[in-house]
Formats: sequence, structure tokens, C-alpha cells
Amino acid sequence: MSDPGKIVIALDGMGGDKAPDMVVRGADIARQRYPEASFLLYGDEARLRPLVDRTRWLKSACQIVASADVVTNDDKPSAALRKRRTSSMGMAIEAVAEGKADCIVSAGNTGALLANATVGLRMLPGVRRPALCTFLPTVRGETVMLDLGANMQCDANNLVEFAVMGSVFARSVLGIDAPTVGLLNVGAEEGKGNETLRDAAAMLRAADGAVTFHGFVEGNDIGGGTVDVVVTDGFTGNVALKTIEGTAKLYTGFVRQAFKTSTLA
Amino acid sequence: MSDPGKIVIALDGMGGDKAPDMVVRGADIARQRYPEASFLLYGDEARLRPLVDRTRWLKSACQIVASADVVTNDDKPSAALRKRRTSSMGMAIEAVAEGKADCIVSAGNTGALLANATVGLRMLPGVRRPALCTFLPTVRGETVMLDLGANMQCDANNLVEFAVMGSVFARSVLGIDAPTVGLLNVGAEEGKGNETLRDAAAMLRAADGAVTFHGFVEGNDIGGGTVDVVVTDGFTGNVALKTIEGTAKLYTGFVRQAFKTSTLA
Repeated sequence: MSDPGKIVIALDGMGGDKAPDMVVRGADIARQRYPEASFLLYGDEARLRPLVDRTRWLKSACQIVASADVVTNDDKPSAALRKRRTSSMGMAIEAVAEGKADCIVSAGNTGALLANATVGLRMLPGVRRPALCTFLPTVRGETVMLDLGANMQCDANNLVEFAVMGSVFARSVLGIDAPTVGLLNVGAEEGKGNETLRDAAAMLRAADGAVTFHGFVEGNDIGGGTVDVVVTDGFTGNVALKTIEGTAKLYTGFVRQAFKTSTLA
Repeated sequence: MSDPGKIVIALDGMGGDKAPDMVVRGADIARQRYPEASFLLYGDEARLRPLVDRTRWLKSACQIVASADVVTNDDKPSAALRKRRTSSMGMAIEAVAEGKADCIVSAGNTGALLANATVGLRMLPGVRRPALCTFLPTVRGETVMLDLGANMQCDANNLVEFAVMGSVFARSVLGIDAPTVGLLNVGAEEGKGNETLRDAAAMLRAADGAVTFHGFVEGNDIGGGTVDVVVTDGFTGNVALKTIEGTAKLYTGFVRQAFKTSTLA
């Protein structure tokens, strides 16, 4: 681990559609905002070096570590795992496993990242499945939502674990004391949805204290900010997340159209 | 059946949060727009009569049929079915079954409506499950989406039937010649999602001609208008629909806030 008060970020320099340029630019902004951060940047040194040299804040806080391989967007998780020791993504994860870095950031292939992280870092005790998680804007701030696509089918135990993981995340990252958790369903009433959801709700009600369980929430509660953490299976979460993106884009188009039609609109 | 070119609408006068006032006002607007429509209005005659008498267009084209019972929002489908012969909703459905009306419109209890319609009108040959369906605005017009909550769990056959039903609906109501159909999934690639979705996709590909199958679509394709018909199970469809509502509401708030902050925004 790094010094207390400092943070070392292992960064996959080659991951993401606009890597490595965008990754280096992002890290430069991060370093400006968080002077306590330093970076281990993994990737093609010949490409990374000139980009880092051009940065304003990053260059004094960044060590480039050469890696021979890159995980592409088309790589299956199995293919990504085979280059775990040689790819920028795999080596950045390994840095965390070895205690050289505090966390790993990658904008690369999500499935590959999940597979590499699961193998390289393992799960916390009691957690059987990893989950994808994000913040979403709401009418009263931000809400954490998970899973967003790592687990297509979930049993009640998985959902309960996601509730605990989401609570910890909301507490440590958003700084919310006792984050409220809602299970995404088709109605708020107890009998709604399927058996998996009803079982998970019963377990969360029984687990009083570990999780502040609000009950079932519906799709409109995500944007409504009804709870701090929305828990769902990866299929539903992925559809909901992309539906939000599509609706926001549609709405932006409507607003733009209204302005074009009339400047007084 | 009514005369060709004319349409008789059986209307549940007592269904909906703001019934009967809103129902009568809506029917008045409908009659103004569609002079070929006439109405059989079911409900409490003492309440309906003065409302209809005050309308401009409806009163000359509306026959009130007294019904003793009302299906409330809290009625379980089983309770609604028991008053099938006496409620405004049940009697309006019966009018279609008896050929006195061409269609039935109700803004009442959805579960009760589904149960009453299924028992009173039965399914078309080859259709095993009813579905809830709506139009949604998209960047290029309107898209039909189903199921929105009638069937929490669906097998591949159900999804294929929804694809056929949605196609017929888009063709007859939206006037689209060969409506394209997409199956809602977490990715467009063939291997994505679960077995049910992959089986349904295989069946739809094989059913060439009956349905113009586009393939898998994602949540952002709903607002994007990628296809004319989006097919999904009732759980996912319900979450997606309500997520759209919540996002639209959130976005409206953002725009309003922007205007308040600066009149030049």
C-alpha cells in the first residue's frame, strides 16, 4: 500500500475506444483535481511517453510501465485471460494484487476487465459474484445502481450480496451514512414480481442493520432518487441503463428541435 | 358489427383515477376528431348523464348503459371477474363479445381489464398469452413495445407470439407496411442474453415473411427508433417503460432548472 493520504492508481493506458490519448488526458485532469494521486500507467511506452510528456499535471506523478499486449474490444474474456500477464489491463490489475497500487482503472473491454479482475483480485469473503455498478443522476442527487450486466441471471443470494456491496459503495464513495436500498421490481407491493425478488426482499428485511432496506422500487424510482442504491439482476439493469441513455438522447433532440422551431419556445 | 366506415366504441365510464369526468371529456375530444365514432358508455347513469349533456360533440353520439358495479383500483383480478356481468368494465367488454361494439376502451385497473378481456373475449387462435402494449415516442416517430407487465416470465413461444401481435398492431394502427421487430436484449450480437431470447430469435429468423425480424436491440434502441416493434417479457418491459417515464421527468426538471438559473441558458 502507498503512504496514508496518498493513493496510487494503476491505469490501463490502452483500454477504451479513444485510448491511449483520452486515458492520458483523463489522468491529467484527475491529477489536477486530486494532487494526492499518483499513477502507474500500463501500455505501449512509445505511444504513452510523448502523450504524458505533453501533460501539465500528470507528468510529474506518473510512472509508465511497458506492456507488450493489448486487450481489444473484440477479445472474449477467455482470450483476455490468456494475456493476463502481458496486457496493459492484466498488468494493471496485477499491480493491485501485488500491493503496488490501491486501485485499478480501465475504460477497456468490460467482459475482459471483469474476468481479469475476478481471477487476479478474487472476490471479498462472502461475495460469490462480481457486479457492474454506476452512479446515475436523480432529482435529488445520485443513486448507485447494480448489477448492470455482469450476471444475466441472479438468485436471491446474489441480489442480497449486491445490496451489501452497493451499500458499502454508497457509504465509502458517496459518503452516505446509512444508504437506503431498493430492489427493482414492477410494483412496490410485497407480492409483486417473481419468487427470486420476493425471497431477496425477505432476506433483506431479516438482515436488519447490515442494509437499510427500503423495499421494492420501480423503474421511475431510479430517476426519482427514491433510494440511494438500486439493486437488480444484470439483464434488467443493463436494459434500464441503456433505456435511460436512449431517453436522455431523445429528450435532448426534442429540446433542440423546440429551440429551432421557435426562439421563444 | 356496425356499418362499414363507422366504429362503435364500448367505453368503461367508471375506469381510471379521474373517472368519470375525464373519460367523458376524452370521449368528447375523440368524437370531435373522429366523427365516424359513436359510443356505448357504461357506468353510473346518474353521474354520467349530466356530464354527457354538457359535452359539445359526444352527446349526439353516445348511448349511456347503466351498470350497477365498478371495478376499483384495489380489486384483484379474481374480484373483478366476479362482477363481470354487472361492472362497467365487464359490461363494456361483453358488448364487444356480443358484436354490439367494435372495441373496448378502459382507463381502469389494468390487471382486472386483462383478466376480464381474456375471459370475455378469449385469445386469437395461436395466441396463448395476452400482452400489454403501448406506443413510445422515438427520434424517428413511434415504436410499439410489448409486453409491459402482463407476463412476468415468458418463454420463447410467448415472445414469438408477441412479435406477431406487435407486427399486426403496428401495421393496422400505425399503418406501417412491413414493421421491423427487435427483441430487447443486452447486446445486438447473436450470442447475447439468455437461452429464451436466443431461442426466440432463432424462431423469428426461421419465420421469415410472417415477421420482419431485425434481431436483438438494446435499451437505447427504444428511444432511438431502431425498430417499429420492441418485444420483451413483461418484467423487463415494465421496468423499461417506467424507467423512460422517470428519465423524462428528471430531464424536464433539469431543463426547468436551467431556465431558472439563467434566462439566456
